[in-house]
Amino acid sequence: MKLQATSGTLSLIRYNPPPFSPPHRCTTPFSLPKHRLFMAACIDTSRAETAQTNQLSCEPNGSHLDDHMYKFANFCRPSFSDLVSCVPMSQNGRKRIHTSTVEDDLCGADLWLKIQDEARSDVEQEPILSSYYYSLILSHKSLESALANHLSIKLSNSSLPSSTLYDLFMGVLVEDGEIMGAVKDDLRAVKERDPACISYVQCLVNFKGFLACQAHRVAHRLWSQGRKILALVIQNRVSEAFAVDIHPGAKIGRGILLDHATGVVIGETAVIGDDVSILHNVTLGGTGKVSGDRHPKLGDGVLIGAGTCILGNVRIGDGAKVGAGSVVLKEVPPKTTAVGNPARLVGGKENPIKLDKIPSFTMDQTSHISEWSDYVI
Amino acid sequence: MKLQATSGTLSLIRYNPPPFSPPHRCTTPFSLPKHRLFMAACIDTSRAETAQTNQLSCEPNGSHLDDHMYKFANFCRPSFSDLVSCVPMSQNGRKRIHTSTVEDDLCGADLWLKIQDEARSDVEQEPILSSYYYSLILSHKSLESALANHLSIKLSNSSLPSSTLYDLFMGVLVEDGEIMGAVKDDLRAVKERDPACISYVQCLVNFKGFLACQAHRVAHRLWSQGRKILALVIQNRVSEAFAVDIHPGAKIGRGILLDHATGVVIGETAVIGDDVSILHNVTLGGTGKVSGDRHPKLGDGVLIGAGTCILGNVRIGDGAKVGAGSVVLKEVPPKTTAVGNPARLVGGKENPIKLDKIPSFTMDQTSHISEWSDYVI
Amino acid sequence: MKLQATSGTLSLIRYNPPPFSPPHRCTTPFSLPKHRLFMAACIDTSRAETAQTNQLSCEPNGSHLDDHMYKFANFCRPSFSDLVSCVPMSQNGRKRIHTSTVEDDLCGADLWLKIQDEARSDVEQEPILSSYYYSLILSHKSLESALANHLSIKLSNSSLPSSTLYDLFMGVLVEDGEIMGAVKDDLRAVKERDPACISYVQCLVNFKGFLACQAHRVAHRLWSQGRKILALVIQNRVSEAFAVDIHPGAKIGRGILLDHATGVVIGETAVIGDDVSILHNVTLGGTGKVSGDRHPKLGDGVLIGAGTCILGNVRIGDGAKVGAGSVVLKEVPPKTTAVGNPARLVGGKENPIKLDKIPSFTMDQTSHISEWSDYVI
Repeated sequence: MKLQATSGTLSLIRYNPPPFSPPHRCTTPFSLPKHRLFMAACIDTSRAETAQTNQLSCEPNGSHLDDHMYKFANFCRPSFSDLVSCVPMSQNGRKRIHTSTVEDDLCGADLWLKIQDEARSDVEQEPILSSYYYSLILSHKSLESALANHLSIKLSNSSLPSSTLYDLFMGVLVEDGEIMGAVKDDLRAVKERDPACISYVQCLVNFKGFLACQAHRVAHRLWSQGRKILALVIQNRVSEAFAVDIHPGAKIGRGILLDHATGVVIGETAVIGDDVSILHNVTLGGTGKVSGDRHPKLGDGVLIGAGTCILGNVRIGDGAKVGAGSVVLKEVPPKTTAVGNPARLVGGKENPIKLDKIPSFTMDQTSHISEWSDYVI
Repeated sequence: MKLQATSGTLSLIRYNPPPFSPPHRCTTPFSLPKHRLFMAACIDTSRAETAQTNQLSCEPNGSHLDDHMYKFANFCRPSFSDLVSCVPMSQNGRKRIHTSTVEDDLCGADLWLKIQDEARSDVEQEPILSSYYYSLILSHKSLESALANHLSIKLSNSSLPSSTLYDLFMGVLVEDGEIMGAVKDDLRAVKERDPACISYVQCLVNFKGFLACQAHRVAHRLWSQGRKILALVIQNRVSEAFAVDIHPGAKIGRGILLDHATGVVIGETAVIGDDVSILHNVTLGGTGKVSGDRHPKLGDGVLIGAGTCILGNVRIGDGAKVGAGSVVLKEVPPKTTAVGNPARLVGGKENPIKLDKIPSFTMDQTSHISEWSDYVI
Repeated sequence: MKLQATSGTLSLIRYNPPPFSPPHRCTTPFSLPKHRLFMAACIDTSRAETAQTNQLSCEPNGSHLDDHMYKFANFCRPSFSDLVSCVPMSQNGRKRIHTSTVEDDLCGADLWLKIQDEARSDVEQEPILSSYYYSLILSHKSLESALANHLSIKLSNSSLPSSTLYDLFMGVLVEDGEIMGAVKDDLRAVKERDPACISYVQCLVNFKGFLACQAHRVAHRLWSQGRKILALVIQNRVSEAFAVDIHPGAKIGRGILLDHATGVVIGETAVIGDDVSILHNVTLGGTGKVSGDRHPKLGDGVLIGAGTCILGNVRIGDGAKVGAGSVVLKEVPPKTTAVGNPARLVGGKENPIKLDKIPSFTMDQTSHISEWSDYVI
C-alpha cells in the first residue's frame, strides 16, 4: 500500500525526487513476535514498508542509507495527527504492540546484546574502565536497567538518592514499551547521524543529549499521569546535570538526535516529530506569560542548526531545515530551508527551494551556502 | 503624590498609554511592622503606591496583573540614580527598613509559610519526595535557612564542604535584609512571569536561574566587602553547577527573572535594574582587556530575549525590549524594541515604536513580528 | 633572523603597521636550562625573538603588552604547517625541549612557585578557604600534580573514581612536556587577556574554560595514542561538568583563552592555532554525516566572539576576528573582521579593512561598531 497523503505538496517541489523511506526505524514489525508479523503489516503498512529499507532492521533486505529520498510515509504519530492521516486501528495496534514485554522485542534484545558486546570490547581496549563499564552496562540484565541506573546516578544528589530515582525510572521503563521503543530509535538515530558516535554503547554511556532525551521521556510520562511535581524535579536535575532544559509537558517523537545538546531549551507545549535532529543551543520557546499552546511544532525529519531560536506556536514543516543561528518567528513550510535573523526562506518566500533529502538524516548544515552566504565574504 | 519624573519622555510615545504601576513588588510598606506603615508611606510614596496594586501584597486592594501600564515610578535604586530622581531620605528609610529583622517582615514571613504549605501539599501528592522536601524546605525554620542550605549543597564539592558554604550564606542572608527582600521579589517575579512556574516552592527548589541569581547576591555582597577570593569561588561554582556565569562585581536589582538561565554571562561592571527578565544564553559582555566600566547597563523593566549578546558599556533604557538572537553594540532607548544582528530599532531609528507595556512583565517576545519578520518567510 | 613568510599578505594591508611580536609566549628559550639558551636561539630564532618582548618571560627586557603589532612570526606549529614554513630542526629542538623534565623548566617552575604564593596570600585573606587551597594547590609538589588532582575531582563520579583519573592525568602530564608548556601558556593567556582574572591561581582553581582546555589536551593525547574509548569518556565528563564539548580529535594550539566557556562546541577535525581567544557559546562545527575533515581551521591570533557558529571545513585566517553572534560558512581572510548572520567582511568583500593588532590579544569585540552597527540604532 502506497500512501499518497502528501502528494499535494509534492507538486510544488522543483526537483522531482525519487521516493524514499526513512532508513532506520525500529518499527512495529520487529517489535513483534514473529507470528504477529503479518497482522502487523496489515495494520500499519507504512511502518512495515519502512522496515524493509531499514539498514539496522532485523529484515535482511535493508538498503543503503544514502538512498533515502522524500516520500512522507504515514508515521502514525498521535501528536502529529494533523500532519498525516492516521487510521485509529493502526494506533491501537501500535499501542498494544509497544506494551508487549521487552522479551518479545527481538530487535531491541539484539540491540542490548550488541551494546554489551561493545562494552566488553571497550573494556578489552581499556582495562582501567572495567569497573566503569561493569557498573554502567555489564552488571545489568536489560537495557531498561542499565538506562535507569545510569540516569539515576547522573541525576541524583544528596537530597535525591539514586535508589529512589532508579526505582522510579525502572518502573516507567519496564511498564512502558513505547518509551523503550523510542530509546532504541534514538540510539540508532545518534549512531547513524552523528559521525562522532563510534558505537551504541558510546551513545548510551557518554552522550548527554541522548540521556537528557530519555530522562525527558520518563518525565513526560509522569507529567501525563498527573505526577507533575516529580516530573519537574527531573526536568530541573537534567537542566543542571546536562544543561538541557526540556519541560516535561513537551511531546517528543522517536528517532531524535540532540547533538552536543548544551543549552537546548524546549517549552511546555512544544511538539517534536519523529526523526528530528536538533543541534545544541536550540530554543523552542514560548512568548508571553499566558498559559496554553504557545511553543513551536516541529514536523518529522526536521533539522535545526546550532544556536537557533524558534519562538511561539509556529509550525516547522516536515523535512524542513533551519540553519544555525537563525531566529524563526513564523511558519516554515515543509522541505524548505530557513536561514538568518530574522529567518528567510532559501529561494525566496514565493518559490522556496525544496529539499530532496531528509535534512535530519543528511545533517547537511551548510549546503545553502551558495544561495545565502556566497556573496557575503 | 504622583511622580512626574518621566513625563518628558512620555510625550515621545506614539500610543497614549494609561498609567500603570509595577504589579508585584514586595515594597517598603509591608516590610515594616504595622505601626510604621504610615511613616513609610510618607517617606517613599512611590513604593507605597506601587504596593496598592500588588496582587501579592499584604494590602487587600491589589488589582489585576494585566492592568499594568507604563508609569515610571521612582524605584529609588541607588545603582540607577541617574535614571530617576531619588530622595536621599527615602533611601535611608529603605536601608533601615531592610536591615530590620526577618521577623518584622510580615509579607516575607507569609511567603515562607506559603512555601512550606506548598511543600506539604507536594509531599502529599508525591510521598517519595518526602525526604527531598524535608531536607530542602520542611526541616528549616526560615527562608534564609532553606535557601542557604539549598545553595550550599548545590555548590559544594569534595574540596568545598557544604557546611562551610552554609555558614557563609546563612551569615550573609541573616544580616542583610536587603538581599532577602530581593530574594522574595525574585520569587514573586518568577511565579508571576513564567507560566511554567506552578508554585513558589517549585521556583525555590527547582529553578537554577533563581538559585544562580541568589548565589550571586551573596557573592556580590562578599565582593563589595572586599572578600573577592571567596566571591570568585562562588561565581565559579555557580558557573559549573548552573551554567550561569555572573561576575560578583555585577549589580543586579530586584524582581529578576533568569528564565532557563543556561549560558547566561554577565560581566563585572554590568548593572541590571529592577523587574528585569533575561532569557537563557544572554550575554552582557565587555570588550577589550582594559579594566574599568566596560559592560552593559540595563534599566528597569527590560526584557532580553534568548541568545542575545549585548557588548560594551551601552545602556538599555527602562522598559526596552531586545529580541532573541540579537547583537546589540549601541544604546537602546527606553521603551523601544531592538531586534536583529546587528540590532535595529523596530519602527526605525528616527521614530521607533514605543512599547505601552512593560516587556519584562508581559514576556511578549514575538509581537514585533509584523514590524520585523513578516516579509521574510 | 627575520622571517618574511607572510610578507606577501602584508602588502594588502591598508594601514602600515609597525612590526610586533606576540607578547606572552613561554617560548622555547626559557623552557631551557640556561646553558642551553644560545643553542635554542639558533634552532628557533622566531621564538627567541618573541621571548625578548614577553612581559612575562624570564628575560629582563620584556616590553609592554600594548606595543604588540602584527608581524607573523614563525610559530612552528605542526598542525598549521601549511600556514608557515616550519624548519624541521626547530621542531625537533622543540620536541626535545618539551620532553625535558619539569625541573629543567625554570620559567614553569617559577610559575608554579608564583601560583603557590598566590594561594598562600589568598588563604591569608580568606582563612575559611584554607582546606580548599590546601587540597587543590598547597599540598601538591608540582603544577602537574595540582592540575591532575583538580581535573580528576571535577570529572570523577560514582562510576569513575577520581583516583583512576588522577593516575591517568598525572601519567600524561608528567611524560608530556609539550602539554605542560601549553598549560603554562594558557595560564598566561588567561591572566593577560581576561581583565576579570586577578591571579594565576584564580585561573587554575576557578576557570572552567581553562580546566576544560587542559582536560582536552590530555584527552587529545590519549586519542592520538589510539586510546579513543578513554578520550571519549573524558570528553563527555568535561561536557557535563563544564558545559564545554571538545572532541578529543580536535587539535588546539598554545596560549588559548576559552572565556566563560559555557556552550563551546569544537568538532573532531577542527584545528585551532596558537594565541587564540574564544568566547562562550562558540561552535566550530561540522556539516553532514560523512567522516573526514569537516570542521573549521582557526589560524593564530584569532578572536571569536560569543555565540558565533563557524561551520564546515573553512579557514579563519591568522589574526582574523569574528564578531559575536555571527554565522560563518566561508573562509575569513587573515587579519580581517567578519560580522553578522550570514557573516560579511567589515570594509567589504573586495577590500576588507585589515586589523593592525592581534584581536585575540586586544580582545576588542566592538570596535567594528562604526563600520557595521552605527546606522542601525
